Amino acid sequence: MAHGGNIFEIQRKCNIHKDDLLDYSANINPLGLPDSLKTMILHSIEDLQHYPDIHYEELKMAIAEYYCVDKKDIFVGNGAAQIIFDTIHALNPKKTMILAPTFSEYERALKVCGSEIVKHALHEEEDFRVNIQELLEAMDKDIDLMILCNPNNPTSKLLKAEEIKKVLEQAVKKNIYLMIDEAFMDFVSEEESYSMMQSYREYENLVIVRAFTKFYGIPGLRLGFGLCSNEKLKEKISSGAIPWSINTFAAYFGKVLLAETNYVEKTHRWLENEKKRFVEKLKEIDGLKIFSPSVNFILVKILKPNVDVLQLQKKLLEKNILIRDCSNFSNLDKSFFRIAIKDETNNEKFAEALQEAMIK
Amino acid sequence: MAHGGNIFEIQRKCNIHKDDLLDYSANINPLGLPDSLKTMILHSIEDLQHYPDIHYEELKMAIAEYYCVDKKDIFVGNGAAQIIFDTIHALNPKKTMILAPTFSEYERALKVCGSEIVKHALHEEEDFRVNIQELLEAMDKDIDLMILCNPNNPTSKLLKAEEIKKVLEQAVKKNIYLMIDEAFMDFVSEEESYSMMQSYREYENLVIVRAFTKFYGIPGLRLGFGLCSNEKLKEKISSGAIPWSINTFAAYFGKVLLAETNYVEKTHRWLENEKKRFVEKLKEIDGLKIFSPSVNFILVKILKPNVDVLQLQKKLLEKNILIRDCSNFSNLDKSFFRIAIKDETNNEKFAEALQEAMIK
Repeated sequence: MAHGGNIFEIQRKCNIHKDDLLDYSANINPLGLPDSLKTMILHSIEDLQHYPDIHYEELKMAIAEYYCVDKKDIFVGNGAAQIIFDTIHALNPKKTMILAPTFSEYERALKVCGSEIVKHALHEEEDFRVNIQELLEAMDKDIDLMILCNPNNPTSKLLKAEEIKKVLEQAVKKNIYLMIDEAFMDFVSEEESYSMMQSYREYENLVIVRAFTKFYGIPGLRLGFGLCSNEKLKEKISSGAIPWSINTFAAYFGKVLLAETNYVEKTHRWLENEKKRFVEKLKEIDGLKIFSPSVNFILVKILKPNVDVLQLQKKLLEKNILIRDCSNFSNLDKSFFRIAIKDETNNEKFAEALQEAMIK
Repeated sequence: MAHGGNIFEIQRKCNIHKDDLLDYSANINPLGLPDSLKTMILHSIEDLQHYPDIHYEELKMAIAEYYCVDKKDIFVGNGAAQIIFDTIHALNPKKTMILAPTFSEYERALKVCGSEIVKHALHEEEDFRVNIQELLEAMDKDIDLMILCNPNNPTSKLLKAEEIKKVLEQAVKKNIYLMIDEAFMDFVSEEESYSMMQSYREYENLVIVRAFTKFYGIPGLRLGFGLCSNEKLKEKISSGAIPWSINTFAAYFGKVLLAETNYVEKTHRWLENEKKRFVEKLKEIDGLKIFSPSVNFILVKILKPNVDVLQLQKKLLEKNILIRDCSNFSNLDKSFFRIAIKDETNNEKFAEALQEAMIK
């Protein structure tokens, strides 16, 4: 399985009903759907009879207001995945640098476009943090595009905005575009120190990717957006996109976004407490290295030489628990897995099951 | 406006609330949403918390069963628009032949891929029917892809399956791929005489595009599929597509599809009767040429030299009625417009308003 969260495949293959599965493989907010979303859907079912607004004006206005960005710089898509694909299609890079490990869809989209891919290896001994000095030195003139994932998936490590600015300045000098995927940034409490959303206007070579999927617990709704102050590039990305790419309910998501300040606060409170608690709990388990997380997912390494992630995954599935095998990430191997952070009750259950699975 | 149905733009520009607008510009089934769809949505709201099945197995199984095609030949997408874009991306044609007039998104997708476009003009004096002999002669060896829309939008004219088979045989000889867009085919009562769905297995160079949007009255849900027996090509199209392209509700649409045989019969009954009645009614209006429709939309020409479609559109908008200006279709001009067929009550209202607008 190339991605986390494929509970339907597990249902087919392992005969575990998706509702009985404790899915630690997908990094979704455990607080569940915001109430205003349910209300909105109930009220707009009849609107499925109309094409969505092809320009998605109302949605863009809400995003602009919520994030304090310019409406004209926003483009929306069918999940962050579409923003990523459309941006790469529009830039059509000959050579692209990505991190290793990082989210696998960049590589897939780049291969579709025929781009050469340079993988910038992150070091385990540095906890897979991005070493900015090394990255700056690796930025060759013949690279057309660099992709950073911040926080990075699956390492859960953050880059500071001031570090990214250094990368951007180097990129300007070397004629490199930078795409930053901030799909998990809403989970970061002090977002302004890490996100480029407040300084994107200064960079003509920058595209920011954002998703609503994870934070608002709605991967099934399919909604993401991109931000770019370079009008020509934004126009090129939009003109290559399929029309009506966002469904009616997702198009109305702006209403939810502006209504749910409580949900945001509750999420940040839950994550701050539970992250600390859960990490401490996991650290008590013998034979694991827990990479300290910045957001709602954790990279873990199995240190026992006779245990690999496939065995562990199998044992946990017997208890209806799904973890994300990370062996198909570049620069990781069969000793790595990724888990989501959920509510305390489930996390307790998970930690117990993991401990048992590590002993047996 | 490049497409029909943009009621949100009308709402913004003309200050007419979308719910007060009689939208004759989009060709959507006036029977409204199937009941089972509403039930399904109400029951699956919580499932938005999961990623949809990345393989959409259940949906494909339902499509295969309903249309008697092979599951392995199906690929699904975010509306027919995605099927069209992904197929064109995968084929990456140097030179493509399309009809004129036809649905505008082919041209847009082809331009994104940098394909040269040859427009095969349909003749007004032949009621814009495709002249198969002429088409066969026009199929040069240097064409890589031909796109047919059947029934054609905006002409509402059908090609018979036996005619398309002639085109396919010529295409095989000349190494041309054929993409047939059957987005409105569900509206055709004797589908088997016109659709290629039952003989697609015989042709390695054929891709069929289908949509649920129009027939089931759900353009807001975004769901279409493609059919292709050429495994390599199907694989290439799928591998270039964005992941999770279909939202949770659309992914469950198979349940609706298999439940709604009554809806299908009711739609065919309504269309058979109302098409005949509405066309006769429209023919009574002076100064119009009504092109006889095969499905749920009608191409109309204004014969009065002092009236053009922009004036007419404006006059009808004053009565909260929206028609589709067809002047931006190749080979048509400011004397053409397209209207949907709705229920008798609305059609009567429409015909009356149109008659008045033509006199003034």
